[in-house]
Amino acid sequence: MVQIVTLDEIREVTAKLDLVGPIEAGFIAYSRGEVVVPPVGELVFDDPPGDTHIKYGFIKNSDTYVIKIASGFYRNPELGLSSSSGLMLVFSQKTGFLKTILLDDGYLTNVRTAIAGQIAAKYLAPPDISAIGVLGTGIQARMQVNSLRTITQCRKVLVWGRSAKNVDNYKRDMEKDGFMVQPQKSPADVAGHSELIITTTPSKVPLLKEEDIRPGTHITAMGSDTPEKQELDVGILGKADYVVADSLCQCRGRGEISKALAAGHVKEENILELGKIIETPDLVSLTESSISIVDLTGVAVQDVQIAAAVCEALE
Amino acid sequence: MVQIVTLDEIREVTAKLDLVGPIEAGFIAYSRGEVVVPPVGELVFDDPPGDTHIKYGFIKNSDTYVIKIASGFYRNPELGLSSSSGLMLVFSQKTGFLKTILLDDGYLTNVRTAIAGQIAAKYLAPPDISAIGVLGTGIQARMQVNSLRTITQCRKVLVWGRSAKNVDNYKRDMEKDGFMVQPQKSPADVAGHSELIITTTPSKVPLLKEEDIRPGTHITAMGSDTPEKQELDVGILGKADYVVADSLCQCRGRGEISKALAAGHVKEENILELGKIIETPDLVSLTESSISIVDLTGVAVQDVQIAAAVCEALE
Repeated sequence: MVQIVTLDEIREVTAKLDLVGPIEAGFIAYSRGEVVVPPVGELVFDDPPGDTHIKYGFIKNSDTYVIKIASGFYRNPELGLSSSSGLMLVFSQKTGFLKTILLDDGYLTNVRTAIAGQIAAKYLAPPDISAIGVLGTGIQARMQVNSLRTITQCRKVLVWGRSAKNVDNYKRDMEKDGFMVQPQKSPADVAGHSELIITTTPSKVPLLKEEDIRPGTHITAMGSDTPEKQELDVGILGKADYVVADSLCQCRGRGEISKALAAGHVKEENILELGKIIETPDLVSLTESSISIVDLTGVAVQDVQIAAAVCEALE
Repeated sequence: MVQIVTLDEIREVTAKLDLVGPIEAGFIAYSRGEVVVPPVGELVFDDPPGDTHIKYGFIKNSDTYVIKIASGFYRNPELGLSSSSGLMLVFSQKTGFLKTILLDDGYLTNVRTAIAGQIAAKYLAPPDISAIGVLGTGIQARMQVNSLRTITQCRKVLVWGRSAKNVDNYKRDMEKDGFMVQPQKSPADVAGHSELIITTTPSKVPLLKEEDIRPGTHITAMGSDTPEKQELDVGILGKADYVVADSLCQCRGRGEISKALAAGHVKEENILELGKIIETPDLVSLTESSISIVDLTGVAVQDVQIAAAVCEALE
């Protein structure tokens, strides 16, 4: 029988799990070529505008494979509905049979994305952080910061968002979580006073310029995950000491790295893959002035690993 | 709330539906360019061998979109399990939200495939049929023949299969359904005495040769749906009066037509698409000696239409 798991059950199980290990193992397996991840499937809708992505794959010789479906319909809030929705399907790699339907509505994607940001900071952020900078005020702007609790003692957050109301809500919510939040007038102001920056917006024009970024800065760029979106000027990647892709293959066509490659500001041979750094942290040797950028476009192996961990915990 | 529908419920609803109309409408919309069907997603497994296909798409400006997952793990019978499994997911095109999970285990794929064969015969089979010829003894060898009841009065079936035991089982089962079944020693014997041939095997070498096919023959070739599989010698397509693809785009890379195109026996401009014939039956004018071939590789619009029809009936 197929097991069907609701969002409430998923949240309850996930809260008790340490997911950093499984996700790190997933990135390592991915960078070793032990993971099969076909190109993302995509459906695009015009009226109302929306898109659906199908990410799927498996770690070779493991028990399961996973197909994830995630939708974004940006006018849903006008109907009182969440813009994002979706589910994960877990199948047996031995029989092809569907084992579990995780009706997570995108929750596990949010969790695994926040954990990827935590992992990026773990290996690449400077040791002393006076403030965490955040562009954007949505779910990831919250989850990424919360996910950094184990990486840094810093609880000061400099935030910039387009909507004053959303910034107010962000400040209120994050202060409940124990952070001290200082709204900033511009992305440049955020970058001017923080050493760990997380960009979480769906912007299609660069929000940060090359001159905004000081030596000794780490950026986790997770907002841009399509060929169109871009939060960082390509010059920032050009001047960075470390440019890291979650998936080099995927970043050739999506995210910040694709823009910087196209503009000739970065060479592919100088880009590291996150899984390689996790496996061999010595690949990175940070100095006080190092600038590092991790471009997270989201890799199906993260979904594979989080879904497998949740299923295991449910058993 | 997501509606979850079991196979038993699906069977019950489907039995009462006339699906020819919706599937024909789907093929017409497809050939008119009103359907979005991205390339099939695919996962291939080695140990045990198996594959999973993701077919997905939608008719523009309709209410829903559909993602279908279908697996074939060919050693499952050794475990007492069906080799095929799968499900269909029906989403709202207005919000992206998942509406219905059809746990059909491949049943609706079998139904829509059999109906496509019925439609092929409706427009292209000769009017007088003395015997239906069938290569293969599996599910489609049964369902395709049963699906022809409304197309022809003929109840005589000439069957060929590799396994004598499977042929015996086929004969027994189909005779229960009211057919008179005569096993044949070779595919050529089947073709020598039937005017409507259905090929349903996963063969990778041609089973029928050019000289086996007599004037006045229609072939529905549905077994070959990958780049590797092939049931018909390319010469058969070369001498046919009508070569019809369910999806020209898909048949360029899969099925009998892909082989005949590559071998230069057929030109793309001479291939008709099934939806065009359904919309304008006069595109075909059969004579007593016409040879016609319909190559069915399976198009996601069939899944979209059958899933929508089942969901509508469930409401």
